Amino acid sequence: MRFICDQTTLVKAINTVSKAVTTRTTIPILKGILLTLKGNELTLAASDLEISIEKTIIVKGEEDGSLVVSSKLFSDIIRKLPNEDILVYGDEKEPLTIKTSTSEFHIIALQSEEFPKMVNMEEEKDKVVFEKEIIKDMIRKTAFSASVEESKGIIVGVLIEREKDSINMVALDGFRMAVVRKKMKNDKEDKMIISAKLMNEISKIIGEEDGEGLVEMFIDKKKIFITLDNTKVVLRLLEGEFIKYKDILPKDKKTKILVNKNLLQDAIERASLLSREGKNNLVKFTIEDNLLTITSKSEEGNVKEEIIIEKAGENLEIGFNHKYILDVIKAVDDEIILMEYNTPTSPCMIKQPENTTYEYLILPVRING
Amino acid sequence: MRFICDQTTLVKAINTVSKAVTTRTTIPILKGILLTLKGNELTLAASDLEISIEKTIIVKGEEDGSLVVSSKLFSDIIRKLPNEDILVYGDEKEPLTIKTSTSEFHIIALQSEEFPKMVNMEEEKDKVVFEKEIIKDMIRKTAFSASVEESKGIIVGVLIEREKDSINMVALDGFRMAVVRKKMKNDKEDKMIISAKLMNEISKIIGEEDGEGLVEMFIDKKKIFITLDNTKVVLRLLEGEFIKYKDILPKDKKTKILVNKNLLQDAIERASLLSREGKNNLVKFTIEDNLLTITSKSEEGNVKEEIIIEKAGENLEIGFNHKYILDVIKAVDDEIILMEYNTPTSPCMIKQPENTTYEYLILPVRING
Repeated sequence: MRFICDQTTLVKAINTVSKAVTTRTTIPILKGILLTLKGNELTLAASDLEISIEKTIIVKGEEDGSLVVSSKLFSDIIRKLPNEDILVYGDEKEPLTIKTSTSEFHIIALQSEEFPKMVNMEEEKDKVVFEKEIIKDMIRKTAFSASVEESKGIIVGVLIEREKDSINMVALDGFRMAVVRKKMKNDKEDKMIISAKLMNEISKIIGEEDGEGLVEMFIDKKKIFITLDNTKVVLRLLEGEFIKYKDILPKDKKTKILVNKNLLQDAIERASLLSREGKNNLVKFTIEDNLLTITSKSEEGNVKEEIIIEKAGENLEIGFNHKYILDVIKAVDDEIILMEYNTPTSPCMIKQPENTTYEYLILPVRING
Repeated sequence: MRFICDQTTLVKAINTVSKAVTTRTTIPILKGILLTLKGNELTLAASDLEISIEKTIIVKGEEDGSLVVSSKLFSDIIRKLPNEDILVYGDEKEPLTIKTSTSEFHIIALQSEEFPKMVNMEEEKDKVVFEKEIIKDMIRKTAFSASVEESKGIIVGVLIEREKDSINMVALDGFRMAVVRKKMKNDKEDKMIISAKLMNEISKIIGEEDGEGLVEMFIDKKKIFITLDNTKVVLRLLEGEFIKYKDILPKDKKTKILVNKNLLQDAIERASLLSREGKNNLVKFTIEDNLLTITSKSEEGNVKEEIIIEKAGENLEIGFNHKYILDVIKAVDDEIILMEYNTPTSPCMIKQPENTTYEYLILPVRING
């Protein structure tokens, strides 16, 4: 293998594929990146058991070939080289050489045969097409609500649900739930579940790709294939039955308020400074006419915050773990949000005032005394 | 105590004095900030056993008084408040109230009597005046060379040495030494030693103060008083005899090279990627005519870097711990630096080509084989 490539292009490609390199493995080959040169196309690939990423870039190819290099060392070296043309060559008998006008590296390479093969996707398979920004936004609005405890099973995943007129993403962790919907005609109705951690990686990869472009998802029984620009990603689906989330969405709402999102965020952040009572991060909401009062107290003192709101329905007193409310507020972009309540012990809903593009459900915390 | 102060001014003052708040103490009062209001002057003060900081700001005073508040909580609260006027009041019988148009905090305050008194400096004392940028620069160029191991005694400190025509700072850790000189007429010749860690804090405090201004140091037997703008700092001097550093400065130099600092930094940083051999971070310098070749190797591979230099004297092969060279290179600003060598086992000196404003000494590492 022998090629010349400019440093910037190579660094970008390494950054993308190295997201699939696991550091926790004891198998040296899985800490590597597979380099495959065919003509002027250099494909970089990395894989752990859950995600595989492949990216192809155009280089000046001089001799086809393939080998595996340590992801960390190769990326450290390329990153530190000046932004100029880099000559890379090596074969099965000698270490890989990386050369610029003033630097010359020789690093140990591994045989490419041992590297796990990337499953090839069949293009005629069932396909969903997203705009980049839309899929990123849907992931950002849901993935944080999934459970981070691996022991919790299927709820570490995000449900992707295709219905006749929409595609929905849903995540929950037992204390809160996020539902995001995007209008889209689908011939097929089905459900699949992908680890929230991997969804966040996908979002990062999409963010790093240049151009507007589209993201294509090809759906298989146990895998999902994602292509965008010159990058291909294969993800393992989680197996299991997702919670019937529609049954949880509350129907009754005795109190509705419209509140400025930024004012609410600032007030809760300040109230959270004194909310360590019982370790449940309790902040208390008192809704009385057109005033939302947020209070909290700890051994160190207490705080009262006031926000003018628009209210319909009954007055209410209800407690929350401030983290769950703040997570939602940080994920949404609307200036004004709608909060719907029923009783002090039933979940609160957070939505856009006018539609149901997103719906968040947050369980309250019981207020003592 | 009762005053009104704008949020930005109060945050800045808290940031400065909180540098003297220790988190490692079990004495609650030492985790606090002392607030003292006299007329329209609010003085914030904090202290641990080594450093005390006081800053006075102008506020709208309504009732004199003083009390102590938790540094962490007070600063978290003030930082999170919007940039508007804040009303603060409290006395010995009730918690401190912090109030804006929409927020009201009540936090527990401690009695100010228990707070350690700041030693007052006597203005007629022995005085040294620095320009801010000069003292910051001298600290930046020396403090990193001091030992970070508390067990090493006096060398965790920076020596400040007044001579007839200059003031010098010196720091060393057994492997390298930094000497920085500033021309200055002094009536008195003496030496004092201040913890390098505290010198770095001083540098940060100076950096945060507005305006050009001067730094005044008043020197006492066991303490040093520093004043700048409205901030006063008292530092405890380290007791003990500093190493006679002038005896260590080498006289013989068989090889001198002039080298571009940035090229050298980049080359060493790349070579360091493969320099884990024997854990001593070894990179090898080969000086041959007008070429400096830097090499290193590890189990993962090897690297060779080449830099064109100007050389006088003999060719040489010498090894270094890359960290010690990089630390120096990062501290100095000159485009071209002078390196002086004697033998492969004698220390290397790094200087400006034309003068001795700074001199760094670095011990070599023995090259095996």
